[in-house]
Amino acid sequence: MHAMPDWLAQRARLSPRKAGLIDRNGRAYTWEELDRSASAFAALLSRHGIECGDRVAVFAGNGYPYALAVMGIARLGATLVPINVRLADAEIAFQLRTVGAAALLADVERYDRAAGLFQSPLMLDELAARASEGRVGEPGPGRRPSLPGFGTDLDRPQGILFTSGTTGSPKGAVLTFGNHWWSAVGSALNLGLREDDRWLLCLPLFHVGGLSIVMRSVVYGIPAVVHERFDPEEANRAIDQEGVTIVSVVSQMLERMLDARRDAPFPRTLRCLLAGGGPVPKPLLERCVRINAPVVQTYGMTETASQAATLAPADALAKLGSAGKPLFCTELEIDAPAGEVGEIRVRGPNVSPGYVTARGFERREEAWHLTGDLGYFDDEGYLYVVSRRTDLIISGGENVYPAEVEAVLESHPDVLEAGVVGRDDERWGQAPVAFVVIKPGRRFDAAELAAYCRARLAKFKVPVAFHELPALPRNASGKLLRRALADAAPSTGKEQTTP
Amino acid sequence: MHAMPDWLAQRARLSPRKAGLIDRNGRAYTWEELDRSASAFAALLSRHGIECGDRVAVFAGNGYPYALAVMGIARLGATLVPINVRLADAEIAFQLRTVGAAALLADVERYDRAAGLFQSPLMLDELAARASEGRVGEPGPGRRPSLPGFGTDLDRPQGILFTSGTTGSPKGAVLTFGNHWWSAVGSALNLGLREDDRWLLCLPLFHVGGLSIVMRSVVYGIPAVVHERFDPEEANRAIDQEGVTIVSVVSQMLERMLDARRDAPFPRTLRCLLAGGGPVPKPLLERCVRINAPVVQTYGMTETASQAATLAPADALAKLGSAGKPLFCTELEIDAPAGEVGEIRVRGPNVSPGYVTARGFERREEAWHLTGDLGYFDDEGYLYVVSRRTDLIISGGENVYPAEVEAVLESHPDVLEAGVVGRDDERWGQAPVAFVVIKPGRRFDAAELAAYCRARLAKFKVPVAFHELPALPRNASGKLLRRALADAAPSTGKEQTTP
Repeated sequence: MHAMPDWLAQRARLSPRKAGLIDRNGRAYTWEELDRSASAFAALLSRHGIECGDRVAVFAGNGYPYALAVMGIARLGATLVPINVRLADAEIAFQLRTVGAAALLADVERYDRAAGLFQSPLMLDELAARASEGRVGEPGPGRRPSLPGFGTDLDRPQGILFTSGTTGSPKGAVLTFGNHWWSAVGSALNLGLREDDRWLLCLPLFHVGGLSIVMRSVVYGIPAVVHERFDPEEANRAIDQEGVTIVSVVSQMLERMLDARRDAPFPRTLRCLLAGGGPVPKPLLERCVRINAPVVQTYGMTETASQAATLAPADALAKLGSAGKPLFCTELEIDAPAGEVGEIRVRGPNVSPGYVTARGFERREEAWHLTGDLGYFDDEGYLYVVSRRTDLIISGGENVYPAEVEAVLESHPDVLEAGVVGRDDERWGQAPVAFVVIKPGRRFDAAELAAYCRARLAKFKVPVAFHELPALPRNASGKLLRRALADAAPSTGKEQTTP
Repeated sequence: MHAMPDWLAQRARLSPRKAGLIDRNGRAYTWEELDRSASAFAALLSRHGIECGDRVAVFAGNGYPYALAVMGIARLGATLVPINVRLADAEIAFQLRTVGAAALLADVERYDRAAGLFQSPLMLDELAARASEGRVGEPGPGRRPSLPGFGTDLDRPQGILFTSGTTGSPKGAVLTFGNHWWSAVGSALNLGLREDDRWLLCLPLFHVGGLSIVMRSVVYGIPAVVHERFDPEEANRAIDQEGVTIVSVVSQMLERMLDARRDAPFPRTLRCLLAGGGPVPKPLLERCVRINAPVVQTYGMTETASQAATLAPADALAKLGSAGKPLFCTELEIDAPAGEVGEIRVRGPNVSPGYVTARGFERREEAWHLTGDLGYFDDEGYLYVVSRRTDLIISGGENVYPAEVEAVLESHPDVLEAGVVGRDDERWGQAPVAFVVIKPGRRFDAAELAAYCRARLAKFKVPVAFHELPALPRNASGKLLRRALADAAPSTGKEQTTP
C-alpha cells in the first residue's frame, strides 16, 4: 500500500489555524493545537508503558478530552476501545478482558467505578489537561517514542467497538483507519463538502455514529462541535446561532429537537440532519418535510464504520422512508428476487475486517458482511429497511440483542427458559419485553428478575415487562420463534411491569 | 485490497438520470446512458480481439467519442494510451511501438494519418456511434466478455501518458485507477464538492489535465462539460450561461478568456478557475483579483495524476503566486534547508508507480518521485514553484523537453552539437530556442534545420529561432550549461528566426 501522511499532522500543515474542534462553551481548538496536544497525549500514554499495538479502553462521556484521546491513541498506533457508559460492571469487565486492555482511561465522573473494574485506571481529564499544556515531562533516555502516526497505515486497527451477535455474547468489531477513511470519503461524495461545514457531535463518542464524526472532521478539515450530552435546546442553539451545517441524530433526538423549537424552521445554513440508528417513523419525517427540514435518512451499523446507505438530499422528499442508496465505495445486495424482502448484505472498503472475541481476532472470510437486517430495493434501486435483524431491538438508538438478555435471565435459578422481544414504546421507539418459563416448584417474580437483570445489564437492556408462559413457541427444530412471541405479547400470559 | 464497485456502474446505480457528460451543443448524456454505452464500447473492442490488459492508443480530438473511449477501455480492463495530436508521425510511431499498442482508435479527422502509422486503425467516431445505439451485434459462442470493470482494482493501470525525461527519450508514465482515485479525492477535500458542480473540460483529453476531469466526474457524479477545443468565447459562455462551476485552464487560456470578456466579472456560480500547467504570471493573477475571479493556482504533473499542490480558494488573495499546499493524501518536500530553494519531491497514493519504456515497465524504486522542479516553502508552508525542472520549457501548456529537441538536431548531418533553452514568449509563455555548433565544412542554415525538426517533432517543439555558436558552454565534467545558454541568448551569435 502507498503510505498516507498522518491525517492530523497533514491537517495541521494544511490549515493550522482553522478550528478542528469546538466545545459546548464555544472554545475552539485549532488543528495545530490538536496536532501538538495529540502528540503530547501519545507521549504521556507512552510514559505509562502503553505501546503501539496496545488496546486502550476509554470509559468517559463526550467532550474535548475524549476527542483528544481518540487522536492521541491513533498517533501512538494503539487501538481505541470505547466503552458504552451505560453498561453494567459485568459487561464492561467482559469487554476489557476480551480485548486484553493495556489501559483504561476514565473521566472524573466515572473514575471510582473504573477503579473497581481495572487496576490503576488513568484519569482522562488530567491526561488531556497535561497534554494540552505540554506538561509531558522529560523523556527518559531513549524513551521518546517514534510515533507510527494517525492513519498512515490504512490497514491498522483504529478501534474495537463491541456489538452483539445472535449468540448473546458481545464481540468487538474491528474498524481500521481505512474503514473510517472510505466511509468519510463515501459520505462526502454523497453529501458534498463545503469549506464552512461544521458537524454537530451530540451522539455518544463510544458509538460509531459519534466516533466517525471525529474521524471525518480530520479527513475533511472541518470542526466537530462536541456536546457533552444531547440536549435538544443546545442542539437547536448550535444550529440556529453557531453555524452548524450537519447534525447526526437518531429519530428520538430529532423529535425532541422539533418539540423544543415548536417546529420553527431551521436556518438555511443547516444543510443536513443525518438520521440513523434505526428507522425514522413516517409521521416524524412528514413533520420535517412540513418545515422544510433537510432530514436525510441513513442506514448503517458499527461494522460499516457508520453509513452504508444514505438518502441523497435531493431525493429526501420523493423517497420518504427510504434509506437511499449505498455510498459510492459500498455495495448492498438483498438476498431475494428483485423487489422482494430479504436479508441485506454489504461489502466495500468501509466494512470491518472481523471481530475480536475471547478466541482472538476472527477475520471475516467472505467479502460480504451479512447484516441480518431485512429490506428491499424499489424499482429505482432505493433501499427500504423493513426491520433490523429480526431479533434486534432498538431502544433510543441503542441496540438490544435479545439473546444477550435471555442468557442473563436463563442464568437465574427460577428461570427454565426465556425469550425477549421488542415492543413499541412511545418515548424510545422500542423497549424489550421478556417471556419466561419458570422451573417447576419456583415462583414467577418480575421484580426479582428485573433486579437481577439490572445488576448484570445496561439499563436500556432490562426488560420493561415480564410475562410468564407455560412454554415458549418453537419450531420443529427447536428454534425460538420470536415473532410468535411478539405477536402474542399483549394478550398472552400475565404481565408484570417493572417500575 | 478491498474490492471497489465499478465506478461507472455505481454512478449509474446511484444517479442514473443525472447528466455525466454534456457536449458543446448542450447534449447531455446521463450516467445510465454512459454506463450502457461504455459496456457496448468494451464489447465492440472485444469483437476486434482487444482484451483485458491490452494497450489501446487513442489519436483524437476532444469530444463525447473520446470520453466514451476512456470509459469503455476502462470497463474492458484495457489500458488507454492517449496520443498527443500535435506530435509528428515519428513521435507517434515511437509511442505505439514502445507500449506495443494492440489497437489504435482514430477520429475521422485523423484517420488517414493513423492508417499510415498503424495497421487497420479503428474509427473512433463509428465505434462510439455504434456503442451509443447499442449496435454491438451478436456475440459469437462463448464470446461475451466478462468485463473486469472500471476501477474495481485500484492497482490496475488506467492509462499510459508519455512524458520526457532528461534523456531526451519520451517514456510512458503509468497511472493506475488508484492514482486517479486519490487525486480526485484529494482535490475534493481541498476544493469542496457540491451537488450542482459542473467541470468544464477544454484542455486536451490526451493530457492528464483533461483526462483527470473525466475520472473526477465519474467519482464525483458531476457532469464534465466537454469542448472539442478551447475557444475563449465558448468557455466564457459555458460559465456565464451554462452553470459551469469549475474550469481547468493554463494561464494563456485564462488570459484569452479575460480578453474576450473584456474583464467582465464572472458570475457567482463559477467557484474555481483552476490554473495549472506552469506558473501563472503575476500581472494576470492581479487582473483576476481585480474582477474577483476565483483563480486557484495549482502545481502538478502527469506523474501525480494532475494536481499535487493547490492553493485553497480561501488563500487565493493572501498568497498570490503560490501553488498552495499539497492535497490531503500527498506529501511534498524540498531538498534544501527550510525557506531555501531546492528540488521538489512528492509522494502519495496519487503518484505514478513507474514508466513504460522500450525495456518494459520500470517501477519507481523510491517512495519519493523527484520532480526536477525547483521551489521553496514560505514560513507558513505554502509552496512557491521557482522554475519547472531546470531544463523544461512550457509553451502554451505543452511541455518541451530540450534533450528531445537536441537529439533530433544532433541527428542532422550539418550539426555537431546542439543546446535548446526556452525564452519568454508573449503568446505562449515560453518558446524553444536552439543553439547549434556546425560541423567543419558545413553551413549554418536555420530554415533547413527548422524544416528538419518539423518533419520529426510536434510543431510546439520546433525552435522559433536558431543561433550558431563556436562551442556550447559546458562544465568541467562536460555537462551542458543550459542556464549559461539562456542567459546568453539575446546577445550571442547570430540569430535566424524561422517563420
